[in-house]
Amino acid sequence: MSKNEINSALKIIPLGGLHEIGKNTCVFEYDDEIILLDAGLAFPTDGMHGVNIVLPDMTYMRENRHKIKGMIVTHGHEDHIGGIAFHLKQFEIPVIYGPRLAMAMLEGKLEEAGVRDRTELRTVLPRDVVRIGKHFFVEYIRNTHSIADSFTVAIHTPLGVIIHTGDFKFDHTPVDGERFDLQRLAEHGEKGVLCLMSDSTNSEVPGFTPSESSVAPNLDRVFSQAAGRLFVTTFASSVHRINIILQLAQKHNRVVGVVGRSMLNLIAHARNLGYIKCKDDLLQPLNAIRNIPDESVLILTTGSQGEPMSALTRIANKEHPHIKIRQGDTVVFSANPIPGNTIAVVNVIDKLMMQGANVVYGREKGIHVSGHGCQEDQKLMLALTRPKFFLPVHGEHRMLVKHSQTAQSMGIPAENMVIIQNGDIVELTPESIAVAGKVPSGLELVDTSSSGMVSAKVLQERQKMAEEGIVTIATAIDWSGKLMAKPEIHLRGVVTSIERSLLQKWVQQRIEEILSVRWTEFAQTYD
Amino acid sequence: MSKNEINSALKIIPLGGLHEIGKNTCVFEYDDEIILLDAGLAFPTDGMHGVNIVLPDMTYMRENRHKIKGMIVTHGHEDHIGGIAFHLKQFEIPVIYGPRLAMAMLEGKLEEAGVRDRTELRTVLPRDVVRIGKHFFVEYIRNTHSIADSFTVAIHTPLGVIIHTGDFKFDHTPVDGERFDLQRLAEHGEKGVLCLMSDSTNSEVPGFTPSESSVAPNLDRVFSQAAGRLFVTTFASSVHRINIILQLAQKHNRVVGVVGRSMLNLIAHARNLGYIKCKDDLLQPLNAIRNIPDESVLILTTGSQGEPMSALTRIANKEHPHIKIRQGDTVVFSANPIPGNTIAVVNVIDKLMMQGANVVYGREKGIHVSGHGCQEDQKLMLALTRPKFFLPVHGEHRMLVKHSQTAQSMGIPAENMVIIQNGDIVELTPESIAVAGKVPSGLELVDTSSSGMVSAKVLQERQKMAEEGIVTIATAIDWSGKLMAKPEIHLRGVVTSIERSLLQKWVQQRIEEILSVRWTEFAQTYD
Ligand SMILES: [Zn+2]
Ligand SMILES: [Zn+2]
Ligand SMILES: [Zn+2]
Ligand SMILES: [Zn+2]
Repeated sequence: MSKNEINSALKIIPLGGLHEIGKNTCVFEYDDEIILLDAGLAFPTDGMHGVNIVLPDMTYMRENRHKIKGMIVTHGHEDHIGGIAFHLKQFEIPVIYGPRLAMAMLEGKLEEAGVRDRTELRTVLPRDVVRIGKHFFVEYIRNTHSIADSFTVAIHTPLGVIIHTGDFKFDHTPVDGERFDLQRLAEHGEKGVLCLMSDSTNSEVPGFTPSESSVAPNLDRVFSQAAGRLFVTTFASSVHRINIILQLAQKHNRVVGVVGRSMLNLIAHARNLGYIKCKDDLLQPLNAIRNIPDESVLILTTGSQGEPMSALTRIANKEHPHIKIRQGDTVVFSANPIPGNTIAVVNVIDKLMMQGANVVYGREKGIHVSGHGCQEDQKLMLALTRPKFFLPVHGEHRMLVKHSQTAQSMGIPAENMVIIQNGDIVELTPESIAVAGKVPSGLELVDTSSSGMVSAKVLQERQKMAEEGIVTIATAIDWSGKLMAKPEIHLRGVVTSIERSLLQKWVQQRIEEILSVRWTEFAQTYD
Repeated sequence: MSKNEINSALKIIPLGGLHEIGKNTCVFEYDDEIILLDAGLAFPTDGMHGVNIVLPDMTYMRENRHKIKGMIVTHGHEDHIGGIAFHLKQFEIPVIYGPRLAMAMLEGKLEEAGVRDRTELRTVLPRDVVRIGKHFFVEYIRNTHSIADSFTVAIHTPLGVIIHTGDFKFDHTPVDGERFDLQRLAEHGEKGVLCLMSDSTNSEVPGFTPSESSVAPNLDRVFSQAAGRLFVTTFASSVHRINIILQLAQKHNRVVGVVGRSMLNLIAHARNLGYIKCKDDLLQPLNAIRNIPDESVLILTTGSQGEPMSALTRIANKEHPHIKIRQGDTVVFSANPIPGNTIAVVNVIDKLMMQGANVVYGREKGIHVSGHGCQEDQKLMLALTRPKFFLPVHGEHRMLVKHSQTAQSMGIPAENMVIIQNGDIVELTPESIAVAGKVPSGLELVDTSSSGMVSAKVLQERQKMAEEGIVTIATAIDWSGKLMAKPEIHLRGVVTSIERSLLQKWVQQRIEEILSVRWTEFAQTYD
């Protein structure tokens, strides 16, 4: 390693995932080389009319496309891989490394978007070390999270080792038996970690996150109390939870019908790769299930967040073509509402109850646990890796602040950490961490039903029309500036208590006034 | 009382407040007489573009306006009195009875709306009994709630006594010393209550709701730790909380500036009536506060729910004309976010923190308690009143269901209660309770910036324009059906990646096609 190289700083530039949960996208840059870690998407918030998908501003990537040597994917969640297909339309990524499940899901996305040929996908196994470019060696360390096949990575750079936790919790009794590789973390801690970048999702929550396995006995009890059909909803990507549900279905002699495209898709991939194990005849198509007695049926469905187009929401709204709720059905929410979805979720619960379903939901039931570690998990991560510098990531501002306070409580000096925003350029040297500038860091809003990006101007126009409606007036004037006929008035989304004929009269008057005032100068200018 | 009267059933028709929290409005009808209990408003939910205020469908009241004998108001919250000014534009209410604080606030609203002359406002005191029409005698029973001067009512009807709890919790150590009149409740329980209608807001929450007084020591501790300016936000209507905050400000030698119109308004009324007590010089105008040292200032502000136009949100967005957050400020959220407001609230918290404020928030701090009773409060209400029939109100569907289960656990038979929806006609006789029909029960959506109601059609149009934008094409054709000039194309809120000139060309082509096909028949029809 030449002296020159040691003198360069390492730049870490998170383009998304800070001051938010979603669209995690991080750039590591050294000399003339860039690697990306994950590239996720986020979903629109209020006021983003007609937007389906939110991506980080990728200006910096477009401008530095020649530097990109490759990408590391930590796991298959949408907030980590959902942006890749969009980005590949704008710039190439020579190679993407990732775990088998994430790569299988990504491959489908890239094919669907027609960009499969713009990169090379390579799967990794635990403890694999891959080289990207001249400067980066990335080691995959198995972790535990709500999706199977998830990794923490140790990025060996010329300046030292950076550990990026990915999304994690410490689950000592993982459903799939794949344990967190604490030994590798500890070994890095022993040898020296320059910087730890760690998941801040639950940094406001005290204690440890319970093991995914703790859900099983509680779900078991709920299942055993259900007399009629059993509906269960959870996140489509929660492989472990789906495994638990399938095992319990088998135990309670219920066949399983799966509703919802994303869940069917995940289950197909996860079964292919052995992450979901069940007997072939456990899963049955919906039309076969219709002939099976209620007490032998479990319907596994998307919609745990009250998403408007999801299967369960459509069932609750009596809009699903094949499934109707009946008296005696039990519906189990094996998921807590994400803040912002609460209203949608409780509305779905109310509608299901009103149609006769017994709905099982709520935190105190113990039928959901988070996939992200709480304060004690975060402390254990810090204790195992003993980093010199600390960079809290994957969280909203106050979560990052809380996580940095947790790190300080363990003896890391405040000056050895920074709270950053998307687009901040973190410069890391063996002796220092600091923010040194900023790259463009706005949003790119995608309306998948159209072919372009939704600009701020378009959003403003949509917002204004949503609030006030629009009045269109069409009229024909002759060459002398006189009205040739009554103006046509067209109202859309406009509230008015004026009678139609009065409005017509009033508009006509105003147009005539305008014409009489303006015509002379207009004629002079354009004649 | 004639035999004829006894034979009539009493109709109870909640027009709002069921399957929701908000716009509580209830009709009691006997023979040819109607009394109303409360008439609140709700706030718009997602997709109600341009709507400020949501009211119940009042068709039934308009059609039966001649029967209306008067109204009972239980307390001064917007979800109980906010609709009255709107309704008085449509039908008269001969007399409205209510507690002093609610009446003072209502009087202001009616004057503002120009309908003060359409009713008579009469204030009541604890244990007052008022007669409305021939059939109804209403007794005001002091209760405890988050606003001062709040009441449960016992409605004496020809069939028996109906107790409507209003909004309540059992607070045995009320901040203003005004105790819940348990003795009157118990006496009614002893004599016999035909039906209890009870607040279901917290029926999913086990235990008792803590006393409002329990907040004081926790706020005291937070205040004592603040070094610079202290901002405190809570609900504008929480009279008791505001009292606690003002007392603590005095204790910590801070003068108080109040920001936010609704809070200033409430404090003025509450001080007038003696519900808020503080020294005159404690409250100072903002421009006087500017010259006072930071550690002697407390700013009490609206915006605890992240409302976009509230003072605190504007401060967080750096849009407030007079107040800017500085390093060292402490901001205390003495309120929990209502579901649906969580995202807005945490966004405000993040922005305040990023400007250097120390923000104190979160359930575990003990700086907020609910104004509504939990399961044990609800049980105590049932135990004191021992009703024959039970009608859970003021709650979303699953809360009503849970409340009815609580009542069943105390021995009230399931057939003696009904879970109803807005608009359901509950028929009550001395022997039975049942739903017997339905009145119109939709929503009336008010856009206060325009003069009319927002119809479902208008909302649909607004939603469609918000999602897709609108294209307006203006063109002139001559009498032979030929284009006289290039069509004018106008895009608003439309996403397109097509080049302008191409779009122009494409539209022109389509118009010419349409003209050539349609002109002949069009000319035949209209010529
Ligand atoms: Zn994530
Ligand atoms: Zn994840
Ligand atoms: Zn209320
Ligand atoms: Zn209230």
